[in-house]
Amino acid sequence: MAEVEQRVSLITLGVADLGRARRFYEALGWSTNAAPDDDVVFFQAGGMIVALWDRANLAEDSAVEDGGGWGGITLAHNVRSPAEVDSVVARAERAGARIARPPAKTFWGGYSGVFVDPEGHPWEVAHNPRWVLAKDGSVTLG
Amino acid sequence: MAEVEQRVSLITLGVADLGRARRFYEALGWSTNAAPDDDVVFFQAGGMIVALWDRANLAEDSAVEDGGGWGGITLAHNVRSPAEVDSVVARAERAGARIARPPAKTFWGGYSGVFVDPEGHPWEVAHNPRWVLAKDGSVTLG
Repeated sequence: MAEVEQRVSLITLGVADLGRARRFYEALGWSTNAAPDDDVVFFQAGGMIVALWDRANLAEDSAVEDGGGWGGITLAHNVRSPAEVDSVVARAERAGARIARPPAKTFWGGYSGVFVDPEGHPWEVAHNPRWVLAKDGSVTLG
Repeated sequence: MAEVEQRVSLITLGVADLGRARRFYEALGWSTNAAPDDDVVFFQAGGMIVALWDRANLAEDSAVEDGGGWGGITLAHNVRSPAEVDSVVARAERAGARIARPPAKTFWGGYSGVFVDPEGHPWEVAHNPRWVLAKDGSVTLG
């Protein structure tokens, strides 16, 4: 039985209001080829894909019960400097996110803040001086 | 204010039992440079990173309330054929996952199954004939 390749292909974010969610990510500067009335919105995100889909449908398709809140997964978006953390968090706030943790130095020696998207999904925006960010945005452990 | 690059750097999975979670992902064939007693385990996953960390710490760090169950995010691992879906799901089951949805044809024209890792995080294992998988495992929308 072959080993499972060490990678993630797709992250699907369950949403209560697809139009609101889509507008939020587009307001960050993201673009999609989804048609206006598509019921799933796919964003190419480097070598993987981020999708927005109805949360109840996603729970059923994932064969899980929806706990209703946060469920133990947090995404992070790493950037190249503390100033860029501030800029991304500010842009997220302007796009409609709630700032759950304002940018500040962290216990692990970096600098980060957390915004929560309009659907309740938190994103940490971080500068980690030990990780390597390539020009294409891919991240490598230091 | 610059646009936010369209990418994810890090997915952190909150876990109740770090040793159990680490053994599960290692049993899939994943490898980490984390020391045996590290309290965070990082896996390089293509151009991004997957981390395992204590779920209560992650909730606090993310400034969110833990709903206790699934929280509206499902990950997927795409492979190159229906047979490979079967193989990955079987390997996950042998590693200790619960099979929440056995592999079968899907409504969107692909083939997939869902396993739930020992910490309650569902993964869809999918073959989507319309998406392009490169040799390095990166996925591109068709």
